[in-house]
Amino acid sequence: MALVVQKYGGSSVADASCIKRVAQRIVATKKAGNDVVVIVSAMGDTTDELLDLAEQVSPLPPARELDMLLTSGERISMALLAMAIANLGHEARSFTGSQAGVITDSTHGKARIIDVTPSRIREAIDQGHIAIVAGFQGVSQDTKDITTLGRGGSDTTAVALAAALEADVCEIYTDVDGIFTADPRIVPPARKIPRISYDEMMEMAACGAKILHLRCVEYARRFNLPIHVRSSFSTKEGTWVVSDPYTDEGTEMEQPIISGVAHDRSEAKITVVGVPDKVGEAASIFKTLADAEINIDMIVQNVSAAATGRTDISFTLPTADAQTALGALKKVQAQIGYESLLFDDQIGKVSLIGAGMRSHPGVTATFFAALADAGVNIEMISTSEIRISVIVEQDAIDAAVAAAHRAFDLDADQVEAVVYGGTGR
Amino acid sequence: MALVVQKYGGSSVADASCIKRVAQRIVATKKAGNDVVVIVSAMGDTTDELLDLAEQVSPLPPARELDMLLTSGERISMALLAMAIANLGHEARSFTGSQAGVITDSTHGKARIIDVTPSRIREAIDQGHIAIVAGFQGVSQDTKDITTLGRGGSDTTAVALAAALEADVCEIYTDVDGIFTADPRIVPPARKIPRISYDEMMEMAACGAKILHLRCVEYARRFNLPIHVRSSFSTKEGTWVVSDPYTDEGTEMEQPIISGVAHDRSEAKITVVGVPDKVGEAASIFKTLADAEINIDMIVQNVSAAATGRTDISFTLPTADAQTALGALKKVQAQIGYESLLFDDQIGKVSLIGAGMRSHPGVTATFFAALADAGVNIEMISTSEIRISVIVEQDAIDAAVAAAHRAFDLDADQVEAVVYGGTGR
Repeated sequence: MALVVQKYGGSSVADASCIKRVAQRIVATKKAGNDVVVIVSAMGDTTDELLDLAEQVSPLPPARELDMLLTSGERISMALLAMAIANLGHEARSFTGSQAGVITDSTHGKARIIDVTPSRIREAIDQGHIAIVAGFQGVSQDTKDITTLGRGGSDTTAVALAAALEADVCEIYTDVDGIFTADPRIVPPARKIPRISYDEMMEMAACGAKILHLRCVEYARRFNLPIHVRSSFSTKEGTWVVSDPYTDEGTEMEQPIISGVAHDRSEAKITVVGVPDKVGEAASIFKTLADAEINIDMIVQNVSAAATGRTDISFTLPTADAQTALGALKKVQAQIGYESLLFDDQIGKVSLIGAGMRSHPGVTATFFAALADAGVNIEMISTSEIRISVIVEQDAIDAAVAAAHRAFDLDADQVEAVVYGGTGR
Repeated sequence: MALVVQKYGGSSVADASCIKRVAQRIVATKKAGNDVVVIVSAMGDTTDELLDLAEQVSPLPPARELDMLLTSGERISMALLAMAIANLGHEARSFTGSQAGVITDSTHGKARIIDVTPSRIREAIDQGHIAIVAGFQGVSQDTKDITTLGRGGSDTTAVALAAALEADVCEIYTDVDGIFTADPRIVPPARKIPRISYDEMMEMAACGAKILHLRCVEYARRFNLPIHVRSSFSTKEGTWVVSDPYTDEGTEMEQPIISGVAHDRSEAKITVVGVPDKVGEAASIFKTLADAEINIDMIVQNVSAAATGRTDISFTLPTADAQTALGALKKVQAQIGYESLLFDDQIGKVSLIGAGMRSHPGVTATFFAALADAGVNIEMISTSEIRISVIVEQDAIDAAVAAAHRAFDLDADQVEAVVYGGTGR
C-alpha cells in the first residue's frame, strides 16, 4: 500500500461542484488501495475577499492578525472537502496546519517551516481515514501564534508533510497537464516534460516557470521526494520531478540537452552610474540593498573607463522591490559617491535550462545565434552549470522564447498543451 | 483597575463599519483604565453562508467537519476586530477558543465547557494588550478536535472566561437596552429591569426571554459573576444580573412582586390518549422520550376515568423535536397499550416571574383573573417557587402577556424600549 500526498490549489476547489469533483478523485485514489493525505488551498477568491475586508477596517493590519484572518480560508475549504468525501461514503478528517504539526518560525506572512510533527495525520491514516490538511499555514514554535507561509506555501506544506510522512509521492494538482518545455501560451508547440531533475526544476522555477515554487522543489530535493505535477482536470500522467530522471529504471530515453525555456516578466533593472572604481564600492552598494531585504538577481559591472576612474553597475531585481531599492540607494549617494541611478522596468528574462548543457559546449553559441536571427538584442547575461539567462527588452520576450525553443528542437509535432485557466496559492 | 469582559454578537460586527464602531467602544473601555477581554461572534450572515456551502457539498455533513467549518466565522470577525483596534493605536491579540483554553467535551455542535485554562489570555492582559476571543467554540479534551458550543455558545464563552479570569463584570452587548418586563414588541409600555437575580433571569430565559441563554446565566450564577446586559448602540446602563439585586449596597428599591412576563411560541403539545392506569406506564412513556433525547417541559396527567381505567397524559416540548417524539412514541404503542396520540403546535406559554411571589400568596389568583378578563383560556398550568406558567392558544399569547403585565402594575408611564434590530448567536 502506497502513501500518496495530493495538493489541490484554489482553482481546483473554487466552488461546491469543484470540491465534489476533487472529492471523487481523492476517493478513487483511496479505492485504488492507497493511503491518502490531501493538502488544500483556500477556495478561489476567498483570500482576495478576506484581504478586502481587512483593508476596510485597517490600512495597515498587523501581520499576526492578517495571518489569523487568512487562515480561515483553508479552514473553510478543508472542512467542505472532508464533508464531500464523507458524502461519498469515506471517512475524512480535516486538520489545520497547527493540528497537522506544521511548526514554523514567527515571521508572519512568510513563515518558514522549522519542523513537521504529523502525529495526528499518521493516526488518522492508521485508522483508515483520509486526512485533509490546510495548506499555506502553520504555528509558530516560539509564540504559538498562527502563521502563513507566503508564496508557494501550499505546495511547500504538501512536500514538507509528504517528506515527514515518508510518502511515496507528492502529487501537485494544477490547471495544466504538467511542466512544459516553454509556456504554451507563447510557444503553442511546447511539449510536456515527462521527467525532470530537481536541479533543472529549481532553475525553471527561479527563472519564471510558475507551476512549482522554488521553495517546494528545494524541500523535495533535500528529502529526495518524488513530485508528480499533473492536472486536476484530467487523469493523464503529468511531469515527474525526481533526483535523476534519466537513469531511473524503466526509462530509456536519451537525456535531452535542453529541458525547457523559461521566461520572467516580473523583473526590473537598476543601473548605478559613475561609481568610483575603488575597492569596496560595489560591496557597499549591495550591502545597502541587503539591509533593505532586497533579493538581487543578475549583476553586471562594466569595465571601468580609464579616463574617469568610474564604472557602471547594473543589476536586476523583482519590480515590486524597485522603489524600496531606489530609495535605499539614494540615501547613500553622497557616501558612495555615484553619479546617478537609471531604472528600467521594460525588461524580461529568458532562460535556457538543461542538465545536458554541461556536456554540450555549443549551447551558448546556438542560443545566442537563435536570438540574433530573431532580431533580439541581449542586455545582460548570466549562467550556471545548467542554465543560461539573458535580459532582453520586454517586447522581445515572446520572440526570444519561441526562437530558443525551435533552435533546440523542442517544438512538438502537434499541440499538446491544454490550459484550463485559473491559479491558486 | 477592573477586568471587564465584553461580548459582542453577530449583529454588532455585521460589517466593517460595525466592527470599527465596536473597536472604538472597546478602546474607550480600555482608556477608562480597565483591562479588557472581548468575546466576539461571527459576522452577521457568515454562519448562514457557511451552512449553505456545507449543504451544497453534502446533505448530512459530519458534525466534526461542520464545527471546523463554522468556527472559521469567528476567526474572521476576531481578526478584523483586532485589526480595527490596532488601527486606533492599541495592541490587540485575537485567540481561537482552543488558544483561549476553552476545553469542552466531544459533542460536536453542542459541546459543553469542561474547563477554562486562559493562560494565554492572562498573559496578553498582563502585557497590556486587549484580548479578542472567538465565541461559540472550544477544543475537545479527549480528541483535541475543534468543537462548537451550540445555542447561546458565545454568551457562555464570555461568562466562562470571565469566571476563569475572575473578571469584575461580564458585559453582554445586544441590540436592546437590557432585559424588559415583557417583550416591548408585544407590550409597548414594558419597562427595562435595572437589576434582576440569577434565579429570576434563569426562569425568564427558560420561559422564552431570548436576550440571555439559560446556560450562560446558570454559569454566571455558579461563579457569582455579575452580568451586565446592555445595548451596543447606546451607552445607557442596561440590566444587571446578580445574586441578590435588592439588598446590594446603593439600591434601596423595594423588591417588586413580579419581575416580568415572558412568553414562548416555540413549544408544541402532545397528548397520549387512553394510557392504561397502571404503575409505571407514565414512566415508560417518558423513558421512551428521554432515550430519544427529547427535553420535556410541562406535564399534565388527567384524573383517571374510573369507568375505563385509562388516563390521558399531555406534555409540551420544543416544536422542533415533535416529529422525533411522535415517532418514538408510535414505536412503543403496542407495548404501552395507549389508544392514540394528539398533536397541537398552535400553543404558546406565558410565564409570570418574580422572586417576590414567594411572599405574596395572591399572585396566582390575580394572574388567572387577568387572563379570564382578557378572555384567555388556560390549557395547562405549571409553577415553581418564583414562576407561574400557563399554556394558552397561540393566538391568545399577546393578549395574555399584556393583561398580566398590566395586572401587576408593570406598565411604564411612557415607552422606554428601543429595539435596534438583528440577533446574533
